[in-house]
Amino acid sequence: MATASGKQPHVVVVGGGFAGLWAVRALARAPVRITLVDRCNHHLFQPLLYQVATAGLSAPDIAAPLRHILRRQANVEVRLAAVAGVDADAKCIRLEGGDAIAFDYLLLASGATHAYFGHDEWEAHAPGLKTLDDALHLRRRLLLAFEHAEAEPDPQRRKAWLEFAIIGGGPTGVELAGTLAEIARHTLRREFRRIDPAQARVRLVEAGPRVLPSFPETLSAKARRQLERLGVEVVTGTPVTRITGEGYWLGEQFVPAGTVVWAAGVAASPLARSLGVPLDRAGRVRVAPDLSVPGHPDIFVAGDLAAVSQGKRAVPGVAPAAKQMGRHVAKAIAARLRGAEAPAFRYRDFGNLATIGRMAAVVDFGTLRFSGLPAWWFWLGAHVFFLIGFRNRLVVLLNWFWAYWSYQRVSQSAKPRRTVTAPGQVAERYRHFF
Amino acid sequence: MATASGKQPHVVVVGGGFAGLWAVRALARAPVRITLVDRCNHHLFQPLLYQVATAGLSAPDIAAPLRHILRRQANVEVRLAAVAGVDADAKCIRLEGGDAIAFDYLLLASGATHAYFGHDEWEAHAPGLKTLDDALHLRRRLLLAFEHAEAEPDPQRRKAWLEFAIIGGGPTGVELAGTLAEIARHTLRREFRRIDPAQARVRLVEAGPRVLPSFPETLSAKARRQLERLGVEVVTGTPVTRITGEGYWLGEQFVPAGTVVWAAGVAASPLARSLGVPLDRAGRVRVAPDLSVPGHPDIFVAGDLAAVSQGKRAVPGVAPAAKQMGRHVAKAIAARLRGAEAPAFRYRDFGNLATIGRMAAVVDFGTLRFSGLPAWWFWLGAHVFFLIGFRNRLVVLLNWFWAYWSYQRVSQSAKPRRTVTAPGQVAERYRHFF
Repeated sequence: MATASGKQPHVVVVGGGFAGLWAVRALARAPVRITLVDRCNHHLFQPLLYQVATAGLSAPDIAAPLRHILRRQANVEVRLAAVAGVDADAKCIRLEGGDAIAFDYLLLASGATHAYFGHDEWEAHAPGLKTLDDALHLRRRLLLAFEHAEAEPDPQRRKAWLEFAIIGGGPTGVELAGTLAEIARHTLRREFRRIDPAQARVRLVEAGPRVLPSFPETLSAKARRQLERLGVEVVTGTPVTRITGEGYWLGEQFVPAGTVVWAAGVAASPLARSLGVPLDRAGRVRVAPDLSVPGHPDIFVAGDLAAVSQGKRAVPGVAPAAKQMGRHVAKAIAARLRGAEAPAFRYRDFGNLATIGRMAAVVDFGTLRFSGLPAWWFWLGAHVFFLIGFRNRLVVLLNWFWAYWSYQRVSQSAKPRRTVTAPGQVAERYRHFF
Repeated sequence: MATASGKQPHVVVVGGGFAGLWAVRALARAPVRITLVDRCNHHLFQPLLYQVATAGLSAPDIAAPLRHILRRQANVEVRLAAVAGVDADAKCIRLEGGDAIAFDYLLLASGATHAYFGHDEWEAHAPGLKTLDDALHLRRRLLLAFEHAEAEPDPQRRKAWLEFAIIGGGPTGVELAGTLAEIARHTLRREFRRIDPAQARVRLVEAGPRVLPSFPETLSAKARRQLERLGVEVVTGTPVTRITGEGYWLGEQFVPAGTVVWAAGVAASPLARSLGVPLDRAGRVRVAPDLSVPGHPDIFVAGDLAAVSQGKRAVPGVAPAAKQMGRHVAKAIAARLRGAEAPAFRYRDFGNLATIGRMAAVVDFGTLRFSGLPAWWFWLGAHVFFLIGFRNRLVVLLNWFWAYWSYQRVSQSAKPRRTVTAPGQVAERYRHFF
């Protein structure tokens, strides 16, 4: 098939996350020209983003330049630009700044961002965690809270600076809370003279009845116990009703807190709205079975931006699902080029895993469920394996090994402890504001 | 000796760089209380800062938290604060925000920043390189220039985006120019579709007659040849007379350039002025032989802020000199506490070395001078050895090994080349904007 211009068909992919990047790679041998458009110059390994926020990893450990990943794939051009909208009828995307890019096929995979459920004014007081910038901002906030506490002469205000709340008991909230408790209790040990960082209260607040609601109840209960063992105070069944610069309201009660982190909700990228098709409550596009947009067979949506149901269950917003959707869209486009029908997308669920902190995690394979140390080892292996690029994997392993070793040493020279450090940990010498 | 308050004498150290940190450590067993005040929470290994600016290393590789370094030294307290001035007669320092800290002894080691010789309006167009923030800003500018060139349809403007000028032929300018030429010629290879990054012009401009003016003439000449071999255009004997957002004037000639980097001059921290004593032309304090401030025997100055002469030669503004001064001040304070006279500072010159880029460096030990590959190996060993903290050394070595290996692999699979990569290089998968 050729376009009006006589060239190969032009596939435009918006978003270099798991969905977009995996689609681009799967089209490497297809007779198409591809343009990949992203606001950032890197692909981000989002499952480890909380580690950057808590200073356990450095930004480049989990980010790889898109141009570099794709440098040998001759049929793709990378464009660093922000997309303002899609003109579905004219078959082009509009860039911020005024340019437009015409497409024969479009994959919209611009993902999701954190959402404040109509309380956008909370964003200034309770930052979220979706991008590398978010992570670096959050890291600075967390470390500065301890500095403020150390410098604060007023006991009430000092106490507030040592009060941390993570809002939202999903995987990100659980990871952040577990890691932050570790930092306060172990990593910052001996570093302050006027405060004891171990006195910091790390509270995980979940409005629903249990943490990790996408996991079976038994694993949620285990996760809660593991969190409490790490020193996290878990509050469930109570919504946060207001957040200000001074603290947050837990139901009717005001809690003064220097640091509130938002891990409670995500909303789809606003680009979905420009398609002019029905969206679900979270702003995601209700796609056809082949992941195309109803009424626009040449426009596909994949990843967190797509609302896809498999039987009764929604396909979850996780990296493996995004990769599978991306690869499916590549197949669907290739089928169309051959004049064939695009197949329907089928999600293969390989299981669900979440880490909690030091040597603590939960794994759900449906029939096989486990938690604690074995789950943590499994989580570690899976995440290191899936990190893009050999070098990053090696550095991440080295960092974690270092964290493990240095923490053991520190704890042994202080007083005997049975605990050891792990990826839920800050590498001691690695902490800094940038 | 006890203070009026009956406690141990209070030593305040301003600045956690080489001078300040080495003084604090040398006072570990002295009968004093120490407060170390710094605007940043980390000690920075400044000799490798250009590597962060050129994306070869990550910020935490060369930064270590001051609190962590000093966590076992019980007589020191770290304070994260900006110092507004010194009140020499009242013996206290004033912090931004209004607080004051009284001292019995003061070490002012707040270093230097880049200076524009009365052209502060150039700063917006030609960023300098003194802090981690500077390095991350510069990295973003350098990488974005290639992105702008790729996106620019106008050939004239595209050419300007591929025009890089480094102003100043000292060690920092030489390192930046050599590394940038490598990035353009090798690292970014294959990554763009509309531009050839190897067409970028990297120009090193030095107003004086030769690069590396602090080295002997023969080594300057060798450095110039090595730079030219790496693809840098070296311009000497011509001053830059004006810098704007569009380019720079080289004498009377305007050169359109998307990126201009300032490596031409440093000026002492403005804190020196608050002492109310004579300063030299660069704003440094003319200290007494024991590094104290004339007329204020309890106030010392060390590092880049101190103007010290040894015979006819000025002590250079390099890390070994700063460390030696810091340790000397600790000895001088200890002597005063014993009621003894503080000895005079003597600088031991262990030689001078500068790196240029891939396998290129110059070393000057006075009688022993060498350049090229042996000098580069020497430079590598010295820098890895002196990096604070075992873990950082290991990671830096690993990064460099990776850069070496991956570049070789890339170049071999393209066409045979005799060149190999090295620390003057960007680790391929390591590049990102943050």
